[in-house]
Amino acid sequence: MRNYKLVIAYDGTRYQGWQKQSNTDDTIQWILEQAVSAYVGYKVEIHGSGRTDGGVHALGQTANVMLAGKADETEFLQFTNKRLPEDIRVRSIELVKNSFHARKSAKSKRYVYCIDQREKPDVFTRKYCYHFAEKLDLDAMRNAAKQLIGNKNFMAFCDKKEDTATTRTIFDISIKKEGSKVTLTYSGTGFLYHMVRILTGTLLEVGTGERDASGITDVIASRDRGQAGFLAPARGLFLKEVYYK
Amino acid sequence: MRNYKLVIAYDGTRYQGWQKQSNTDDTIQWILEQAVSAYVGYKVEIHGSGRTDGGVHALGQTANVMLAGKADETEFLQFTNKRLPEDIRVRSIELVKNSFHARKSAKSKRYVYCIDQREKPDVFTRKYCYHFAEKLDLDAMRNAAKQLIGNKNFMAFCDKKEDTATTRTIFDISIKKEGSKVTLTYSGTGFLYHMVRILTGTLLEVGTGERDASGITDVIASRDRGQAGFLAPARGLFLKEVYYK
Repeated sequence: MRNYKLVIAYDGTRYQGWQKQSNTDDTIQWILEQAVSAYVGYKVEIHGSGRTDGGVHALGQTANVMLAGKADETEFLQFTNKRLPEDIRVRSIELVKNSFHARKSAKSKRYVYCIDQREKPDVFTRKYCYHFAEKLDLDAMRNAAKQLIGNKNFMAFCDKKEDTATTRTIFDISIKKEGSKVTLTYSGTGFLYHMVRILTGTLLEVGTGERDASGITDVIASRDRGQAGFLAPARGLFLKEVYYK
Repeated sequence: MRNYKLVIAYDGTRYQGWQKQSNTDDTIQWILEQAVSAYVGYKVEIHGSGRTDGGVHALGQTANVMLAGKADETEFLQFTNKRLPEDIRVRSIELVKNSFHARKSAKSKRYVYCIDQREKPDVFTRKYCYHFAEKLDLDAMRNAAKQLIGNKNFMAFCDKKEDTATTRTIFDISIKKEGSKVTLTYSGTGFLYHMVRILTGTLLEVGTGERDASGITDVIASRDRGQAGFLAPARGLFLKEVYYK
């Protein structure tokens, strides 16, 4: 058995997200499995670092796949990309230790959320950012973001009542403005279902003045989804990178 | 009668081009006419500055429409954009003289062709540039471009044998490189069917060394499409602006 690590970019617009589903073939995981299975000649299973929702994009989703034998990485990469639709690209393939698991071995992740502040939505970037023209107080958003840093129970910022633990560590949230584009970059050990999009919705409500920056600590303490902000649309979200040891 | 000038941006990816066709509703002109007709309550006809091919984009396509009476420009713009799919946007609406005609009054046009020189195609820009990784000699391309400037018979750079005159004036072709992105900007009185894409294909053949820069004058003189280069894909082409007096 040989274990290969794949770094994948995709335009999530027309997919139902990363994870395979019984009722649709429009998932990234399923399409990747078909392409790799066609290369090796038998059915493989691909393990992603985590799910991304329908419409969410990736610059560096990471996955691993166990093959029966050794593969030529260059040929493997070329063949797979030829089989894939052009909105999914494997950026690199690397032989790794058998103990490597894209999800279990991940140490942290970085997500970027893009906001377009132009007056009117743009036809060329509309799928890759959230058009939000209302004026934003970025300093207030940064003050609110500070309260989210650390090891906390983020149950209030999660849409699914999961049985699993809802405690995560956020290392950093940086908010930058370049022209009319505002980007929120989130780094942390991992993120719950919808968490980055709810964090973004909440910070946007602070930015418009609809919500007070100082109230974030109370939202966290409430563990109540109803206290947090709106779910920002999937189109603005990118899984930028997954970090391993 | 009141005449309105519309400036329109569109992502041409999923359309069969600007011009209405009897066998499809997937044209920009048709969709715009539906939206404006719904606003005024009667059937209108929209005149574009010229056709764009299927898959070609526009930042500033220009059109005019005659309405029976006066319209509030702001309301007209908002209503129309609400009816339009998000990959077609009217950027502005302006009341103009009845003598204004988007095609007949046009003095010149500017087109931009985008080339992505990165080693691998990118999932996020693939619809808005032509991925062409082969190394390009931009100076050779600029030398070739110089021979295209002026008032000339561009029959060799046109795909359709039109009965109409094939003489046009090219004012300028500028070739710029920013990082791994190469853009070719064409300004001229007008362009024949496929002309910008054939000019681009020809200049790319010069850039790779497949064709000699000094041979362009002979290609023009030949008036033979077979002597010119390949048809560069629609996805890289943008109608940037139409100029009037």
